[in-house]
Amino acid sequence: MEIADWRKQIDELDEQITFLLNKRAACAVEIGKLKQANAAAVYEPQREQKVYEHVTAINPGPLTNAELDDIYQRIMDVMRAKQRVK
Amino acid sequence: MEIADWRKQIDELDEQITFLLNKRAACAVEIGKLKQANAAAVYEPQREQKVYEHVTAINPGPLTNAELDDIYQRIMDVMRAKQRVK
Repeated sequence: MEIADWRKQIDELDEQITFLLNKRAACAVEIGKLKQANAAAVYEPQREQKVYEHVTAINPGPLTNAELDDIYQRIMDVMRAKQRVK
Repeated sequence: MEIADWRKQIDELDEQITFLLNKRAACAVEIGKLKQANAAAVYEPQREQKVYEHVTAINPGPLTNAELDDIYQRIMDVMRAKQRVK
């Protein structure tokens, strides 16, 4: 396979990843509404820690746990900000 | 639905996202090998630009394009570093 073929695969994966990240954001928005209704804190370090533990526990590679963690830190930053939007 | 139910959904989405990010990384590693064989540059801003344009073009929301772009910048950082590893 040539670079163009791998890139075609990447483009298809990005379509799925984009779809799933948005589904995840929709869930985060719903949680944000429930937190607001209960006057609960948006930032919950224990829950975030569980997310990191979960994804690294099921990480099949070739991403290292540190690399996956890097990506998930950004995902969590964005999702947390999203929960704060009214 | 309660917070715990949404979190269960998020955990399931994270399993799919983790799987797809790793498939994407495997493609990036293969591209890295081809680039090395051709003595080509790992950093290709034009290709990276196309990735951002692609994902924002198909972004269904609720993530804004800026939020999706934020996440993808981190994904691209990690993937680029991965291509440099021998």
